[in-house]
Amino acid sequence: MAVGLQQPGNLFPVEGVELATAEAGIRHTDRKDMVLLTICEGANSAAVFTRNNFCAAPVTLARQNISSHAPRALLVNSGNANAGTGQQGMQNAQASCENVARLLGIDAQQVLPFSTGVIGEQLPMKKMDAAITGLAGDLHGDNWLAAAQAIMTTDTIAKAFSEKFEVGGRSVTITGIAKGSGMICPDMATMLSFVATDALIDPDTLQTMLERANKASFNRITVDSDTSTNDALVLIATGQGGAKIHQQQESEAQQFYAVLESLLISLATAIVRDGEGASKFVKISIIGADNHSDARSIAYSVAHSPLVKTALYASDPNWGRILAAVGKAPVDTLAVDEIDIRINGTGVIERGQPARGYTEKLGQQAFRQAEIDIAINLNLGEADYHVWTSDLSHDYVSINADYRS
Amino acid sequence: MAVGLQQPGNLFPVEGVELATAEAGIRHTDRKDMVLLTICEGANSAAVFTRNNFCAAPVTLARQNISSHAPRALLVNSGNANAGTGQQGMQNAQASCENVARLLGIDAQQVLPFSTGVIGEQLPMKKMDAAITGLAGDLHGDNWLAAAQAIMTTDTIAKAFSEKFEVGGRSVTITGIAKGSGMICPDMATMLSFVATDALIDPDTLQTMLERANKASFNRITVDSDTSTNDALVLIATGQGGAKIHQQQESEAQQFYAVLESLLISLATAIVRDGEGASKFVKISIIGADNHSDARSIAYSVAHSPLVKTALYASDPNWGRILAAVGKAPVDTLAVDEIDIRINGTGVIERGQPARGYTEKLGQQAFRQAEIDIAINLNLGEADYHVWTSDLSHDYVSINADYRS
Repeated sequence: MAVGLQQPGNLFPVEGVELATAEAGIRHTDRKDMVLLTICEGANSAAVFTRNNFCAAPVTLARQNISSHAPRALLVNSGNANAGTGQQGMQNAQASCENVARLLGIDAQQVLPFSTGVIGEQLPMKKMDAAITGLAGDLHGDNWLAAAQAIMTTDTIAKAFSEKFEVGGRSVTITGIAKGSGMICPDMATMLSFVATDALIDPDTLQTMLERANKASFNRITVDSDTSTNDALVLIATGQGGAKIHQQQESEAQQFYAVLESLLISLATAIVRDGEGASKFVKISIIGADNHSDARSIAYSVAHSPLVKTALYASDPNWGRILAAVGKAPVDTLAVDEIDIRINGTGVIERGQPARGYTEKLGQQAFRQAEIDIAINLNLGEADYHVWTSDLSHDYVSINADYRS
Repeated sequence: MAVGLQQPGNLFPVEGVELATAEAGIRHTDRKDMVLLTICEGANSAAVFTRNNFCAAPVTLARQNISSHAPRALLVNSGNANAGTGQQGMQNAQASCENVARLLGIDAQQVLPFSTGVIGEQLPMKKMDAAITGLAGDLHGDNWLAAAQAIMTTDTIAKAFSEKFEVGGRSVTITGIAKGSGMICPDMATMLSFVATDALIDPDTLQTMLERANKASFNRITVDSDTSTNDALVLIATGQGGAKIHQQQESEAQQFYAVLESLLISLATAIVRDGEGASKFVKISIIGADNHSDARSIAYSVAHSPLVKTALYASDPNWGRILAAVGKAPVDTLAVDEIDIRINGTGVIERGQPARGYTEKLGQQAFRQAEIDIAINLNLGEADYHVWTSDLSHDYVSINADYRS
């Protein structure tokens, strides 16, 4: 049950990018589970990856390949994460890249592999190799929606957004897809997301913009505090659309960046809206902190609290749990009698005590909404931070207590 | 459903300590919800309290009183935590202490108040004052079990242990009670626990022993990663039994300490065994870490992982989730290809890969047990650490999504 999410709308092709999808039968039959995405010559790409110490084989290989070669193809599979698979896992990831490279007539180091799904099982290489041959012969520019569907695991809805706008009198397109629902607490990037634009952007500008937009989007979401082994986010600039973006041209770069950031936020929050078992979409804002790091630490302390998350699920305005979750954050300067809390605009706590005029009924009205803004003002300083999260429901337990989800 | 917990056995009275319980009707009717515990003159007491920045009014007052006066009485109520209650909350805690002091003919600063239950509501002072009068006239040495029952909130079973042994040819008794089930991730102490001995122990030795034993017991448990606002642990030494314990007399102090630590571990693990919705009792041991702090951080990373906890609930040997939870800990030196994992003695992971001879069936057998030992050897150094935790079940969500549990 995704909160306030619609099926993707119109997705614009990005000149220079083609995609194909296939049913390889990796984990389930009768569903697409592989994507091949090709990139024209001369394009630049930037990427960020998980900070989980035990990153998966494809993450290790993709990080290695992109550091020395401009990517020409991305190969993605769902159903199997190729994580916790040791040397065999690295060999399999490498073999898939070589297979793609041979079919496309490019170098294996120009291929980036991505996997998502169950941890600890080897990839079914025969099935995948057979599918790759079909993929290479089926590439089209308008397959973004099919690709968004093929990378889903426990997602209940495809996540894709697209924008067409003008920069310096020239048309720019950005189209992006993402997947993710559980094991969501990115520490650098989230599960998988692939975004392409037809603007011409130099590698440094591209990487700088990606890292900045990632901090404002994928690095601010959490479903269950568990950082995945496979997170990756790739931004491709094909340069085929005529628009040129460079950080020295500030106004145009800002125009482009604003759309990029907004699109990444749409993708990242779509993952939370479709978080495993989510019945609520929650923004937690910390205001008036001494510094950014305190604000972030408190925001995640509230967002990760099982007691806050179950109260949200129950639509129970149990603000005491929010207060306790703020208080357990490792921030020495916190003063409970300075704190204000507003829920969807309703004053709940004023200077550490129930706000004047607050009634249980008002609290219930605020907590009954499917989308909830929790604004916590520490009244200590000028720094703020916000994160997006979901509630903790029976469905979360069911989904993850199913034998090997 | 408490895992492997029996109703308390024989509880020995501790000379110099008397207890009374009452039904004040604080939150529910027809159940005991108040305890008065009195301590003889000349006794020494030590205490540790929550490190939640927003500690409750009774914690603030108890910490203040014990710093200047030897406690002569503890007043405990369940059903209401007197937390997030501002100045009125402090005044109510103070008024209760004054009421007890007047009835017992002692100073109000010799009374320590303790509260546990719902956060954010003022104490029902009229009901409590009426009950206190009755308590003062009903004190007996053999009311430990009734007291353990009266301090329960979402606990399903009373937690109490008692030991009688000899030190230096003299008999020593230690009896202790605890409560706690949810909001369990103590950072100094746990919910509420009161332990008394009839040995004579000087204040410094007592505080040193309490802090050391607390680190080995209550500070190693987590049910849901939420640190309570009200945690407190008190150790009373009445000196009425004839045995004298002093840290300079090493062998006798060690004898006493060993029993004390073991009793605190029994109380602390009883809280986990009765964790909200718990169907499994789990010990997570980190072995071969570079240092103690890394080992602790990894142990809690695994113990707090919702994905590990739901896999435990499902009896699903999904070791990939354990590996991912180890990997997300902020420890730079981790090397996945060094890691060994054993579950109840069964080798699951060897040097980062499925262990030789490991089969899904063996994994299932290990995970089906109600008590599970997860031993994770990092093979990096000599430091180790262990914590105790429970699984994440449908019942946990039900208990906490009930309107205002």
